Amino acid sequence: MLSPLPPSVYNLIDAALTEDQAFSDPTTEALVPPEVQADGIIRAKAQGVLAGIDVSLAVFQRVDPSLEIQGLLADGAVLSPGNDIARVHGFAGSILRAERTALNFLQRMSGIASDTNRYVRAIEGSRSRIVDTRKTAPGHRYLDKHAVRMGGGYNHRYNLADGILIKDNHIEALRSREMGLREVIELALSRASHTIKVEVEVESVEAAQVAAEAGAHIIMLDNMAPGIMKQAMDVIAGRAVVEASGGITLDTVREVADTGVDLISIGGLTHSVTALDISLDLEFI
Amino acid sequence: MLSPLPPSVYNLIDAALTEDQAFSDPTTEALVPPEVQADGIIRAKAQGVLAGIDVSLAVFQRVDPSLEIQGLLADGAVLSPGNDIARVHGFAGSILRAERTALNFLQRMSGIASDTNRYVRAIEGSRSRIVDTRKTAPGHRYLDKHAVRMGGGYNHRYNLADGILIKDNHIEALRSREMGLREVIELALSRASHTIKVEVEVESVEAAQVAAEAGAHIIMLDNMAPGIMKQAMDVIAGRAVVEASGGITLDTVREVADTGVDLISIGGLTHSVTALDISLDLEFI
Amino acid sequence: MLSPLPPSVYNLIDAALTEDQAFSDPTTEALVPPEVQADGIIRAKAQGVLAGIDVSLAVFQRVDPSLEIQGLLADGAVLSPGNDIARVHGFAGSILRAERTALNFLQRMSGIASDTNRYVRAIEGSRSRIVDTRKTAPGHRYLDKHAVRMGGGYNHRYNLADGILIKDNHIEALRSREMGLREVIELALSRASHTIKVEVEVESVEAAQVAAEAGAHIIMLDNMAPGIMKQAMDVIAGRAVVEASGGITLDTVREVADTGVDLISIGGLTHSVTALDISLDLEFI
Amino acid sequence: MLSPLPPSVYNLIDAALTEDQAFSDPTTEALVPPEVQADGIIRAKAQGVLAGIDVSLAVFQRVDPSLEIQGLLADGAVLSPGNDIARVHGFAGSILRAERTALNFLQRMSGIASDTNRYVRAIEGSRSRIVDTRKTAPGHRYLDKHAVRMGGGYNHRYNLADGILIKDNHIEALRSREMGLREVIELALSRASHTIKVEVEVESVEAAQVAAEAGAHIIMLDNMAPGIMKQAMDVIAGRAVVEASGGITLDTVREVADTGVDLISIGGLTHSVTALDISLDLEFI
Amino acid sequence: MLSPLPPSVYNLIDAALTEDQAFSDPTTEALVPPEVQADGIIRAKAQGVLAGIDVSLAVFQRVDPSLEIQGLLADGAVLSPGNDIARVHGFAGSILRAERTALNFLQRMSGIASDTNRYVRAIEGSRSRIVDTRKTAPGHRYLDKHAVRMGGGYNHRYNLADGILIKDNHIEALRSREMGLREVIELALSRASHTIKVEVEVESVEAAQVAAEAGAHIIMLDNMAPGIMKQAMDVIAGRAVVEASGGITLDTVREVADTGVDLISIGGLTHSVTALDISLDLEFI
Amino acid sequence: MLSPLPPSVYNLIDAALTEDQAFSDPTTEALVPPEVQADGIIRAKAQGVLAGIDVSLAVFQRVDPSLEIQGLLADGAVLSPGNDIARVHGFAGSILRAERTALNFLQRMSGIASDTNRYVRAIEGSRSRIVDTRKTAPGHRYLDKHAVRMGGGYNHRYNLADGILIKDNHIEALRSREMGLREVIELALSRASHTIKVEVEVESVEAAQVAAEAGAHIIMLDNMAPGIMKQAMDVIAGRAVVEASGGITLDTVREVADTGVDLISIGGLTHSVTALDISLDLEFI
Repeated sequence: MLSPLPPSVYNLIDAALTEDQAFSDPTTEALVPPEVQADGIIRAKAQGVLAGIDVSLAVFQRVDPSLEIQGLLADGAVLSPGNDIARVHGFAGSILRAERTALNFLQRMSGIASDTNRYVRAIEGSRSRIVDTRKTAPGHRYLDKHAVRMGGGYNHRYNLADGILIKDNHIEALRSREMGLREVIELALSRASHTIKVEVEVESVEAAQVAAEAGAHIIMLDNMAPGIMKQAMDVIAGRAVVEASGGITLDTVREVADTGVDLISIGGLTHSVTALDISLDLEFI
Repeated sequence: MLSPLPPSVYNLIDAALTEDQAFSDPTTEALVPPEVQADGIIRAKAQGVLAGIDVSLAVFQRVDPSLEIQGLLADGAVLSPGNDIARVHGFAGSILRAERTALNFLQRMSGIASDTNRYVRAIEGSRSRIVDTRKTAPGHRYLDKHAVRMGGGYNHRYNLADGILIKDNHIEALRSREMGLREVIELALSRASHTIKVEVEVESVEAAQVAAEAGAHIIMLDNMAPGIMKQAMDVIAGRAVVEASGGITLDTVREVADTGVDLISIGGLTHSVTALDISLDLEFI
Repeated sequence: MLSPLPPSVYNLIDAALTEDQAFSDPTTEALVPPEVQADGIIRAKAQGVLAGIDVSLAVFQRVDPSLEIQGLLADGAVLSPGNDIARVHGFAGSILRAERTALNFLQRMSGIASDTNRYVRAIEGSRSRIVDTRKTAPGHRYLDKHAVRMGGGYNHRYNLADGILIKDNHIEALRSREMGLREVIELALSRASHTIKVEVEVESVEAAQVAAEAGAHIIMLDNMAPGIMKQAMDVIAGRAVVEASGGITLDTVREVADTGVDLISIGGLTHSVTALDISLDLEFI
Repeated sequence: MLSPLPPSVYNLIDAALTEDQAFSDPTTEALVPPEVQADGIIRAKAQGVLAGIDVSLAVFQRVDPSLEIQGLLADGAVLSPGNDIARVHGFAGSILRAERTALNFLQRMSGIASDTNRYVRAIEGSRSRIVDTRKTAPGHRYLDKHAVRMGGGYNHRYNLADGILIKDNHIEALRSREMGLREVIELALSRASHTIKVEVEVESVEAAQVAAEAGAHIIMLDNMAPGIMKQAMDVIAGRAVVEASGGITLDTVREVADTGVDLISIGGLTHSVTALDISLDLEFI
Repeated sequence: MLSPLPPSVYNLIDAALTEDQAFSDPTTEALVPPEVQADGIIRAKAQGVLAGIDVSLAVFQRVDPSLEIQGLLADGAVLSPGNDIARVHGFAGSILRAERTALNFLQRMSGIASDTNRYVRAIEGSRSRIVDTRKTAPGHRYLDKHAVRMGGGYNHRYNLADGILIKDNHIEALRSREMGLREVIELALSRASHTIKVEVEVESVEAAQVAAEAGAHIIMLDNMAPGIMKQAMDVIAGRAVVEASGGITLDTVREVADTGVDLISIGGLTHSVTALDISLDLEFI
Repeated sequence: MLSPLPPSVYNLIDAALTEDQAFSDPTTEALVPPEVQADGIIRAKAQGVLAGIDVSLAVFQRVDPSLEIQGLLADGAVLSPGNDIARVHGFAGSILRAERTALNFLQRMSGIASDTNRYVRAIEGSRSRIVDTRKTAPGHRYLDKHAVRMGGGYNHRYNLADGILIKDNHIEALRSREMGLREVIELALSRASHTIKVEVEVESVEAAQVAAEAGAHIIMLDNMAPGIMKQAMDVIAGRAVVEASGGITLDTVREVADTGVDLISIGGLTHSVTALDISLDLEFI
C-alpha cells in the first residue's frame, strides 16, 4: 500500500511518462513477448538514505495497474550496496516501460536524502537543525522537501506564502521613503498576518541587534564567518530564532552549529543533487 | 523576443509558480509599494556556460505580462563572474515574485551546460561526441536535453520511442526461447520500423563482434576499460556506430575518446547536476 | 492593465467558460450580427465594496483577446447603486458570451468583500482584526481570501501547510498515550518547523492558561461567551496572540472585539456569501 | 460505492486539495502517529436537505484510497441536527487532511438543497416548478445544479448552448435594423436548431402577447408584480411555457405560483448560498 | 485577427503539438538556419469548402507567437485547386514545426465542410435541413460541428445534455414496468425540464402516430424507406418536427428530402471524413 | 483486464466525456430507473479488423468504475457482422451515458485497422510494408498509429523528433547558400544525432542516385510512376531503405509493391477514415 501523494505529484508522473513515451517502446514491442512475467527488484548500489519509494512505485502502477508492488524498505532507511528496496511483479514489458522514470524519481530523492543526512550527522549532538530552501527543481518542491525530511533535515518555508522573509531588495525598495532596517521590520510586523512569522536577513552584528530589538521572529545571518555569528548570537540573546545561511559546506557546518544557531540552511541540498546509484534487476520466472 | 517553448514547459512553469505560491507573497504585499518599479539584472557569479535564458524569462512574463524582458546573452554563451545575462524591467513586486522560480530553472540548466562543456573540452580534437541519457529530472527532459546541446553535447534517444536499445533484460527475457545475442538482434531488426536504429549493449569483445556481424546499427560498450574498448573497436571495424558508456568521468573521458568511439554517454550530465551560481540584483530607479 | 493572476485562477476561468459552453451560444449566433460592436458597462446596483475586477475582466479577454477592457474602479472601492465599475469595448457577441461568467466571479467576490467590510466597520476603533477561515468554495481559495482583504479583513492560514492548529481531534488522537493539552503543545513546538507558528484551540479559561504557559504562539478561544473570553485574556496576559472564533455574528462582533482579542475569525465570510448585485449594460454605438 | 462523477468534478477536487496543500499538514505530521486509525462521522448540526455526499466522500478517497467510506444517508434526505450522514474509516491523519475540503463541498451543496427545498415547500400544491439559473459559482455548475435537484427544484438551461434566450441586449443589437420584438423572435425561430427551444424575456403584458403570437416556446416575465403576471398569463393563453423571474423571495414566491406560471426562477439559490452546518467527529478506536 | 476559440480547442492544439514533438525537430535544427525567414502559403489542391482557418492559424501562433498570420479566405468559402487560403510570415523553422499539425486540423475540417456541402446542395430547394450527429472524433466535437455549419448544415444535439432522445434501449428499460411507447413519452415529458425538447425514435408509421399523439416535440423516423416516411409524415400531420435518420446517402438524400421531413441526419458527415487536399508552400525571400 | 494506456489517452477520454456531458443525461434521468441493470453487448455490424477495444472499454470504466467489462475479442481480430466484441455489465444508466463516446473511439480505430488491412492484403507476398504518416487526427496520434499496427501495417515516424526527413522546403531554405541535394544530405548526416536515421524525399531518378551516394539512410520516392520507381530502385542498388509515397491507392499499391520498395506510405490510412459499423445492444435481465 502506497502512502497517498498529492495531485501535483501524479501530474508530474504523467508528464514524465509522456516525455519518455513510455507506452510506445519499440524495444519491448519487438522483443518481449506480451505474456512474459518477471520480478523486478529495485536494489541499492551505493551507501545512502532511501527516499521516494512511494512515488517510484506509483510510477509502475500508473504504467500498468496490474503490476504488484511491494516496498521492502521505507523512506528514511539507511542503504548499503546490495540492499533490496522494493519488488515489482507482473508483465515484464510493463516493468521495462516504467523502469527509467521510476528510477529517475528514486535516485534524485535518495540523493537528496543521503546528502542531507551527511550534514545532519556532521552536526550530531548540536542544537542546530539542518533546513532546506526554496531552491528546488521546478515542479519537484513537494518531493525535494520530503526527501530532506527523510534525510533527517527540516523544512524551511514551503513557498512564498509561508512566511515573511525580508531581504536586501525589500529594504532597498523602501529606502527612498527614508526607512531603515528597524522601520522596515516594524512595518512588516504591523502589516503581516498574525499567523505567520517575520524573518529578516542581516549581514552584520549591528543589523542583527536592530532586528532583535525590532521584534523579528527569525534572524538569518547571511554569509557570516562563525566568529561573527557568535557575536550576533550574543546580541540577539535569545530574542529570536537564528538561522545561519550562505556558503556553508560539509567542512564548515560543524563549526557553524557550534555557534548555537537554531537553523542552518543549505541550498545545495536541493539545487545541486547527486543521484544515488540504484538499479532495477529483472528476474524471469 | 523569447524562443518558442513547448506546451509541456509552460505547464512546468505553471506548476512551479503554483508550488511556490508566487502570487501570494506576504513579504512583497507588506513591504513593496505596488507602484514601485525596478530593474532586475540577472548576473553570473561563477564560470560556466549559459542555458535556460528563454524559460527563465518566460517565468517573469508568466507572472506579469507587463514586465519588459531583455536577454543580454544567448544560450551557449560562456559566462564569467559578473557577466550580465538578462534584464527585467517593471513592477518590483512582480520581479520579486518570479525571482526564485526563474533562477531555479536557469541555475539547473546552466549547471548542466557548464558540466557538459567540461566534458566536451576534455575531448577536444577527438572524433567522439559527448551524449546524454534518459536519466533526466522527471518533467525536465526537454530542458535538460536542451542544456546538454548548449554545452556542446549531443542528444542520445529523446525517449523510449526514439530507437531500439537492447539490454541484458531483453536478452534475458528471450533466453528461455533459446535465443542468443545474434538471434535477438536479428529479431529486433526484422520487427523494428525501418525508420529507427537498433542499438545493442555489450559487455565483452566477443559480444561486440556478434553484434556487428548481426547488423546492429549502434553498439554500446558498457563499462569496459579503454584497453578492451580498443579491441572492441577493432572487431567492429566500422560496421556500426560505437558508444562508450558506464562510469566515465572527467578524469577518464579523454582516454575513452582516444579509443575512437563515436559517442560517449554520461548519465551524470543530467542526473547529478551542480547548479551554476546566478543571482538577480534589483536596482530601484 | 490587469493585475497578474495565478495559473490556478486561469484554470478556473477556463473551467467556468467550458461548463457554460461560452463559445457555443445559439442566441448570439442567431441574432447578433458578427460585426456589431458595443460598449459593455459593468455597473453596481447595490451598496458594497468591490472585489474581483481583475478576474472578471480577464474572463472577457479569455473569451476574446480583441476586447478592450478598462477598469474604472479598483478592488476595495466603495460602491453605490449606479456606479460604473468597468468598461468593455468590442464585438457585442464576445461581450455577451463572457457576461454571465464574468459577473459570477465579480458578484461573489464583491459579496465577500462587502460582508467583510460590514464586520470591519462594526469593530472600528478596536484593536481586533477580522480574519477569514479555510471554509472557502472549493477552487476559490485565492479569490475568496483576496476578497476578504479587499473588504478590510485579514487572512488566517491560507492552507493546511501554513501553520500548526491543534484541535480537539489532535488531542484526542494522543489521549491514549496519556498526553494532556500541555504535553501536546510541547510536542508540537518541539517537532514543528521553526518558521511556523503553533496555534491551539481551547474551550475553557483553564485550557487557555495551560496553552499560554506551554508556549503556544496563538490561542483560539472557541465558542466562548464574551465574559469568559475576558477571563481568558486575563490569564493569557499577552503571552500569545488571541483569536476568538465560533458563532460570532454582526450583532455580537463588537462585544467580542471589546474583550481585546487580536483576531476574530468568521467562517461565514466565505462559506455563506450573498452575491452583490452587479449588472452589465450594453450600449450599441 | 460512490455515484460516478464527471471529470470536471475530479479536477475541482484536485484543485481544492492543491490549494489547501492537504498533503503537507504539519499539525498531523507533528501530532498524529501515522498508524493511528479512527472513525470519522459526518454529522448534521442543523435542519436541512442533504446534497453532495458523493463528491465529499470522493475527496476522502482522493486523499487516501485506503480509507473506507460509507454513506449512511443519500442526497435528498431530510436532515435534523445530530443525524449521521456518512462514516469514514482508516488512518486518522488521512481523515484530517481531507476533512475541510470534503466539508466545504458538502456544506455548500447541502445549503443549496436546503434553500431550494424551502422554496419548493412554499409553493406545494401549485403547478409551478422552482428552477435555477446560470448564476453559479465558477467551476461548480454541475454540483450547484445537482444540489438544486436534490432540494426538489428543476434545472433551467445548463449552459449557453442549451437553448435560445432572447434578452434586451439582443433586441437592442438589432434595433438599428428596424426589427421589433416580433421580428427578432421570428428570426431566432428561423435560424435556431430545430432541437432547442426559444425563450424570450418580456417586461410588459403587451410584449408577452407579441411573444406568444410570434411563437416563442417559453416566455419569461421579468420583474413583474403578480397582478401583472396574471394578465400576461391571460394573453399568453397557454401558447407558451411561462417563467416568472426577478426579485422573487420566499415571502413572495407563493403569490407568484398562484398566478399559474410554469417556472419560477430564483438566482439566489446558487449565487447566494448559506452553508449548512455539518461537522466531522473523529472517534478513536 | 483570429476568431476566439474555446479552452478545449487550445488544449487540443497543445495535445497535438506535444504528440508531434513539434519543438524537437532535428530536421529543422540540422538544416534551417535560425534566422531564415519565409512566407508560408496555405493553398487548396482540390475542390471543396473551407473550414478550420482559425484553429489552423492558431497552431502557428501557439508554436511561435512572433509569426504573422493572415487569413485570405474565411470559413465557408468555396475552394478551387490553387486558391490561396492563408499566409504565414516569419521564421521558416517555426513554420515548418507547425505545418503538419495545422494542416491536420484544416484538412479534416474542410473535408467535413465539403462533404456536408455536397448533401446540402443535393437537397437545394427542399424544406429539409442537413444535420449532424454525436458521432464525432473524440475531442473534436466543437470543431466537427463547426465544420458542418460551414458546409451549410445544421447541428443536432451538441451533447447528451442538450435534449431528450428516447431510443429503443430506453423503452426496453421500462418494458418490465408495463409501459408502452405512449407512457414512456408521457413520462419523459412530465419529468423533463421545460426548457428542452423531447425527441423519440420510431421505426414504424404506427409508432410515429403514437408519438405525435403523446406530444413528442421531435419524431425521428429511423431507417425508413421514403415511401413509409411519407406515410409517417401524414399521420404526424405537423404536430412534431420530423427527422429522417439511418443509412441515408448522397444518392438517396434527395428522395428523403422530398418527403417533406424537417431534418435529415447523416452520421457519416463526422464519423467518416475524407480529408480535403490542402498544402503549405514555403517561399524564401 | 485492460492493456495500459498512456496519460494522453485518458486525457482524451476525459475531454470526450466532457464535450458530450456524459454525466448530465436528461434522457436517462427521466426514464431509466437508477437501480436497473443490463448487459451491453458491443457487436460488429460489418466486415473488418478490430482496433480500440482497450480504449473503448476504458471509457465505460471512466464513466462508472462499478461497470464490469469483458473483452471477447482482441485488437487485430477479423470481424464479421454479428460478432460479439465485448460485454459490459452493470447499471443501464451508466452504460447508456458511455455508449456514444466508447463507440466513437472504437469505430474510428477499427475503421483505420480495416482499411490498413485491405492494403496489407493487397500486397501479400511482396517484400514491402504498408506504413502510416503523421497525418493523424489531432490528439489521436497514439490511437491512430496503434490501429494501423492492428491492421497489419507498420508505423513511420511517430513525430517530428523521431528522425530527419529532408523535403523540398529544407533544400529550398539552403539554396541561397549554394548547397545542392548532396551537400544538404551531408550536412544533415554530420549534424544529426548518431541515433536517428536521415531520410530524403526525391522526385527523380537522378536525385535518388545523388541521395544514395550521399549516404541517406532512407530515400522516399515521391509521386513517381511505378516504372520510374523501378529505375530509382536500380540506381539506389540496396544502399538505402526505399519508401514509396504519394497518391498510392488500393488499385495501384500492388504495382508499387512489385517494384521492390521497402515501405509504402499511405496518408489516407489516418487522414481519411471510414468508421466501421459497430453497435451496442442492451439486454435487460
